[in-house]
Amino acid sequence: MALIVHKYGGTSMGSVERIKNVAKRVAKWHKAGHKMVVVPSAMSGETNRLLGLARDLKADPDPRELDMIASTGEQVSVGLLAIALHAEGLEAVSYAGWQVPIRTDSAFTKARISEIDGERVLKELDAGKVVVITGFQGVDPEGHIATLGRGGSDTSAVAIAAALEADECLIYTDVDGVYTTDPRVVEEARRLDRVTFEEMLEMASLGSKVLQIRSVEFAGKYQVKTRVLSSLTDPLMPLADEMHSGTLITFEEDENMEKAVISGIAFQRDEARIAVMGVPDKPGVAYQILGPVADANIDIDMIIQNQSVNGKTDFTFTVGRGDYQRALEILNNQVKGHVQAETVLGDPKVSKVSVVGVGMRSHVGIASTMFRTLSEEGINIQMISTSEIKISVLIDEKYTELAVRALHKAFELDRG
Amino acid sequence: MALIVHKYGGTSMGSVERIKNVAKRVAKWHKAGHKMVVVPSAMSGETNRLLGLARDLKADPDPRELDMIASTGEQVSVGLLAIALHAEGLEAVSYAGWQVPIRTDSAFTKARISEIDGERVLKELDAGKVVVITGFQGVDPEGHIATLGRGGSDTSAVAIAAALEADECLIYTDVDGVYTTDPRVVEEARRLDRVTFEEMLEMASLGSKVLQIRSVEFAGKYQVKTRVLSSLTDPLMPLADEMHSGTLITFEEDENMEKAVISGIAFQRDEARIAVMGVPDKPGVAYQILGPVADANIDIDMIIQNQSVNGKTDFTFTVGRGDYQRALEILNNQVKGHVQAETVLGDPKVSKVSVVGVGMRSHVGIASTMFRTLSEEGINIQMISTSEIKISVLIDEKYTELAVRALHKAFELDRG
Repeated sequence: MALIVHKYGGTSMGSVERIKNVAKRVAKWHKAGHKMVVVPSAMSGETNRLLGLARDLKADPDPRELDMIASTGEQVSVGLLAIALHAEGLEAVSYAGWQVPIRTDSAFTKARISEIDGERVLKELDAGKVVVITGFQGVDPEGHIATLGRGGSDTSAVAIAAALEADECLIYTDVDGVYTTDPRVVEEARRLDRVTFEEMLEMASLGSKVLQIRSVEFAGKYQVKTRVLSSLTDPLMPLADEMHSGTLITFEEDENMEKAVISGIAFQRDEARIAVMGVPDKPGVAYQILGPVADANIDIDMIIQNQSVNGKTDFTFTVGRGDYQRALEILNNQVKGHVQAETVLGDPKVSKVSVVGVGMRSHVGIASTMFRTLSEEGINIQMISTSEIKISVLIDEKYTELAVRALHKAFELDRG
Repeated sequence: MALIVHKYGGTSMGSVERIKNVAKRVAKWHKAGHKMVVVPSAMSGETNRLLGLARDLKADPDPRELDMIASTGEQVSVGLLAIALHAEGLEAVSYAGWQVPIRTDSAFTKARISEIDGERVLKELDAGKVVVITGFQGVDPEGHIATLGRGGSDTSAVAIAAALEADECLIYTDVDGVYTTDPRVVEEARRLDRVTFEEMLEMASLGSKVLQIRSVEFAGKYQVKTRVLSSLTDPLMPLADEMHSGTLITFEEDENMEKAVISGIAFQRDEARIAVMGVPDKPGVAYQILGPVADANIDIDMIIQNQSVNGKTDFTFTVGRGDYQRALEILNNQVKGHVQAETVLGDPKVSKVSVVGVGMRSHVGIASTMFRTLSEEGINIQMISTSEIKISVLIDEKYTELAVRALHKAFELDRG
């Protein structure tokens, strides 16, 4: 008998019929002898409807009050799901985040979980009940409701699984797992049976938006076995099949498994590249260039500084395409003269393509295979950035699909 | 500077425009120097929508889960109203019942308030904030959300006013006060400037459904000056006018006021009369007759037992018309033989008409005026029941309007 956490997204909770299906699925797991905790999102559309009302009253509503309003969507969901579970003949009880309690900081609309007290939930589980807990929210040190921001229910589910030392956290969603790359770009993309949380972290931050990145961080930090799987399957499918479907995110590298060197090809369109050229290389110059951009709330992604030549150096970095014009203006008006740069250049149409895999650590030649493959396709590499388990390159956006397909094939990801 | 509690019903909160009007009205009071607490209901229709979803999942949903769901309507309202108050340039903060906390028992869907801790709210008021508190709900000893049942926001507002020792509790609603009788029946019905809480209690329980009866009980028990007034007036009307509009429910009889003997004529249609005739008069017989009816969850209203003659007596009582057939069946099948009654009779088409007034205590002749008036109209009295401040009679339903009009005139209620 295991302790299992299920998380269901807003689409899975979107109607009375779908809520009944969720209840049937949970009942199946419970009847197989597992202790069940379920974390449902708000019914799809509900949170947007409520926040829309708030914005009709005031253009910039107070975040603390927004959280008071937005948190109700999940509260309705847990009550409804508990009732649907009763209709399946189970004992079930719902809890709001503050009732567990799930403690957070006071950063309303983007709070972080600080602590979860699992005692009350464990007591209910021991009494044979299914416990349904609101995702997306907790309670701050002053007793105010604080939400975790969009996608926060993933994080709630993993954090609850960690606090309860659950055997597995199953994230039911409208895709059936994590793929070697986007199946809309590469037809041969394969679903991965497992990825490590580090790979998932790189995949998530690089644009494979299956899971909210903070939930992956939590899974890694607290070593929570997390599985991403489809909520669109028959809720009464055999448990043995369901238990091995989707993609398992593991916190350990499986020694017995014939591990592919590369797990996937991630990519991020809508990037823009900016270069500040011929800057006298003095201590503090990086901050002088990037500080004003960051102060304008512009996210900076890749950053490269060349070896200086004759005391001068070049800074190149990427921003989201929507921030490109604003970043250029800041650099030209506030930074260029100040740091005595020769010129500021940019390209608003670039993509980032990355190969990701923990196998990279023990294999040589990954970078050269990547660069050769792109070269053979005639794709110019504009920037390179590497971490322990990924290599990212910046290329002209029009070559994105070509690059992803070529790399997918070169690393034999279609072969499994 | 006074401490004032405002309560707004679901219609007043029914749209973004109406919420803005509520905020304008509250802002006017706040700017006049008053400390303001506001208790809004859920947006009209919202609670029904949510409970409908629950009933689609299960015919008899768990009350504890219903409260989890239903309480969110008010939580949305407090957040929205706080934001609307911010838009008016005020500092405002919302609180859910559990955050105050408003403590209740565990009778989910019909809980009773046991205690309100006003410390946190008073601190916010001292800091110059408007405090917006969810009506209709509180938290039980185990930390579960419990709602007070329909109309519970009136009770919340009065109870909060009592806990904070507020100077006045203003209940804004879609009528502009308490009338001498229903204006739809008697054109000359007048709005009362004030009624005592005891009169209001009799009026409310007798069918003048302006305020939830428990809120009136609270107002009396804790001596809360409560005013019922219209939310349909211009929110920016002069404060001096608004402060004296509507009907004030006082806990004291005003000595200086030329008090009418009778305050109003209340009536309740849809009653049914049942008589159990010729019952041997033994100890316990009342319970043997009424027990099985009450056990079937049928509310019994007026009860009369005649003086016994030759060791036999008659029991007469009234029930709601919807329960008439069921009550008759119970009496004929379970009770009649058991208590050896001679016969069970009934009339499903009767009304109760009552004259109510604290002045009755010190005036004689009220009953005779009432009976003479009805007699002059040719209306037969089927039952009579009296309390210290009211006299109720049961009559054939078809005479309801005639009786109410005649009594309204006989007691000169049209003259003020």
